[in-house]
Amino acid sequence: MPRPSKKNAFYAQSGGVSAVINASACGVIETAMRQSRYIGRIYAGRDGIVGALTEDLIDVGRESRETIRGLRHTPAAAFGSARFKLRGLDKNRAEYERLIEVFRAHNIGYFFYNGGNDSMDTALKVSQLGEAMGYPITCVGIPKTVDNDLPHTDCCPGFGSVAKYIAVSTREAGMDVASMARTSTKVFVLEVMGRHAGWIAAAAGLAGRKPHEPPHIILFPEIPFDQQRFLDRVKQCVTDYGYCVVVVSEGTAYPDGRFLADAGTKDAFGHTQLGGVGPLIANMIREAHGYKYHWAVADYLQRSARHIASKVDVEQAYAVGKAAVELAVKGVNAVMPTIVRKSSRPYKWTIGHVPLAEVANREKKVPREYITEDGFGITEACRRYLEPLIAGEAYPPYKNGLPDYVRIKGVPVKKKLATEFKI
Amino acid sequence: MPRPSKKNAFYAQSGGVSAVINASACGVIETAMRQSRYIGRIYAGRDGIVGALTEDLIDVGRESRETIRGLRHTPAAAFGSARFKLRGLDKNRAEYERLIEVFRAHNIGYFFYNGGNDSMDTALKVSQLGEAMGYPITCVGIPKTVDNDLPHTDCCPGFGSVAKYIAVSTREAGMDVASMARTSTKVFVLEVMGRHAGWIAAAAGLAGRKPHEPPHIILFPEIPFDQQRFLDRVKQCVTDYGYCVVVVSEGTAYPDGRFLADAGTKDAFGHTQLGGVGPLIANMIREAHGYKYHWAVADYLQRSARHIASKVDVEQAYAVGKAAVELAVKGVNAVMPTIVRKSSRPYKWTIGHVPLAEVANREKKVPREYITEDGFGITEACRRYLEPLIAGEAYPPYKNGLPDYVRIKGVPVKKKLATEFKI
Repeated sequence: MPRPSKKNAFYAQSGGVSAVINASACGVIETAMRQSRYIGRIYAGRDGIVGALTEDLIDVGRESRETIRGLRHTPAAAFGSARFKLRGLDKNRAEYERLIEVFRAHNIGYFFYNGGNDSMDTALKVSQLGEAMGYPITCVGIPKTVDNDLPHTDCCPGFGSVAKYIAVSTREAGMDVASMARTSTKVFVLEVMGRHAGWIAAAAGLAGRKPHEPPHIILFPEIPFDQQRFLDRVKQCVTDYGYCVVVVSEGTAYPDGRFLADAGTKDAFGHTQLGGVGPLIANMIREAHGYKYHWAVADYLQRSARHIASKVDVEQAYAVGKAAVELAVKGVNAVMPTIVRKSSRPYKWTIGHVPLAEVANREKKVPREYITEDGFGITEACRRYLEPLIAGEAYPPYKNGLPDYVRIKGVPVKKKLATEFKI
Repeated sequence: MPRPSKKNAFYAQSGGVSAVINASACGVIETAMRQSRYIGRIYAGRDGIVGALTEDLIDVGRESRETIRGLRHTPAAAFGSARFKLRGLDKNRAEYERLIEVFRAHNIGYFFYNGGNDSMDTALKVSQLGEAMGYPITCVGIPKTVDNDLPHTDCCPGFGSVAKYIAVSTREAGMDVASMARTSTKVFVLEVMGRHAGWIAAAAGLAGRKPHEPPHIILFPEIPFDQQRFLDRVKQCVTDYGYCVVVVSEGTAYPDGRFLADAGTKDAFGHTQLGGVGPLIANMIREAHGYKYHWAVADYLQRSARHIASKVDVEQAYAVGKAAVELAVKGVNAVMPTIVRKSSRPYKWTIGHVPLAEVANREKKVPREYITEDGFGITEACRRYLEPLIAGEAYPPYKNGLPDYVRIKGVPVKKKLATEFKI
């Protein structure tokens, strides 16, 4: 394969953040720094792709080695991320052309894009358009999504840590409810993320092994919600075990596809109803059975919880960042590194890669054989898949009782283009 | 002081659980086992005081040393807790008489009651009635409440760990919002526990030091809620910093004393509105300013989060359990061990004790000088008070990626009374 001549590298973070996306950044940067034969300067987009479009680049070379190393234990997006999906080439070619223009101005020959499905699509288009516009650029996507829904990779960096957080929290809150159910709360509902795929909800299933151990009921987006069957099961749990712990995915939907969280979000006056699917489910149970209940909505707490990150997840996040650079300097274009599982027990994995064209805009849902026949739990096969992903602890350092997360200086690169770009 | 003759000991857990109430149990049991000159068998109430009333006692001697030691790192109430307040002596003397009857039947001479304000009142009454009924019993209360609202002790075991959880979570979620605010969520609201006192909300203030660092606004039960001032401040934060993180105590109330969470809990048809004060505040902001928002309600997750417990809290929880037994065998009756602060920087503490009569049914709120003049933050004095309480990590052991919490066998003690007692 022909090796590209020495060029600068651009790295950007995209979409919802995770506890370990900065570990991928760390992997990219530390590896790129060792590839000085191929890679010149390293730039990052401030607030993701928005930084590229507005020529707002961060000079990563101005950050200390300690800061770069500290990214490995720092959650959220250190360089800023963005919910900004580039429209299709046919609809808005100008955005892609602007990217190429900025890359050309800063002699950027490597484009590393760290995100989910949409981002892989963007990376692919940048690669194609660069070629067409006479400015070839090596584009490598780096997988990141707490939703674990990217195809062709055994798992997605970010997922293992949110899975661990939810499994740990379910075990802890379950013990809380169990110890007080005789005179107090009988039902506890935990709402977790996962709009289209129930991987995070499934992870809660790791908290218990036996039928009486929480969670007693998991509601997946993959299983159409049957209210009566659900309510009957809740009652059965309270009768049999004295209490019931329910974990509900935000994407749980009725058979006709409507999200539970969307149904009845307006009251008779058109006012928005408060609360998500967690309180909705809790209220449904109270109205049917009158049980005392509590509910929790972890929301951003779950995806930023670096304090309880999975060690395996941190290692994989770093590894895909490192592999992205190694692939790029070999001239491998338009690919995404993947996690390849060699065995589950003991857990063995390695890094592979897949063409971006095969990843973009596809979703991997929880397969039916990972969900128990009744639709309310996880099977042994699912447990075998999930368990290695939450293995090991990777605690951040602490200072005065709090995690000592790093913050970048974020020194801007001098602009070279006369034109501004409105996003 | 005269030493009581050798008697059995009874221990019970009461009220809402915490991450470290079992560490107090561990302190009680391990210390009692070393006091075989004074203490015979050790019994625990199954589900708190309910276990005593129904003569449902657990033989602690049948648990292994490993299980007892493991209580130190296990959250919730291993022996079961109860929300069951004994009514006043004048209204229901029968309950107290029943307790004495059970204690007499099992030769119990020591009563250790681990709980909050109500529990200290119960312990006091048992002590008084025992004396009056010719069955003197040494009663020692052991402080426990995540609310940190017991008087005469510098802090309450259970609080330091929930404080750490909330401070860590606020820092992490704050970084999440900060890194995406340019194109996504502008406002994040975290609802925390604390119905009458804002100590837990105050702890969120530890997450940041400078005005631009989250949390930007804390809503305390101690400060009457002024909607317009609040909304103005939110707007100012978004303008100045690009985003706004709000931590709201569940006990936040209007100037007339109504809880925000209670206001408007019914819609026009009398249906219960879903959601607590967190989503209510978030919705209020959206209606006023139209900002994209997210909210989280930690609920039981916060008080059971042993995985991120404060080391100081675990040590103090153990120490008050140990001190309770040491006081009791010296014949000191109707007292509660307290945490006495010797200095804040460096943090030094010791154990004291206070008569139960001075603790029962009193609440310690956040003093005005701990809250900034504008009512939205914590002062340096508050920080100085709180910081030592979240110091140090005390991680539980892990197995297969999850905390390896212990579970008691819970072997019942043979009943001796012919009568049943309905609770």
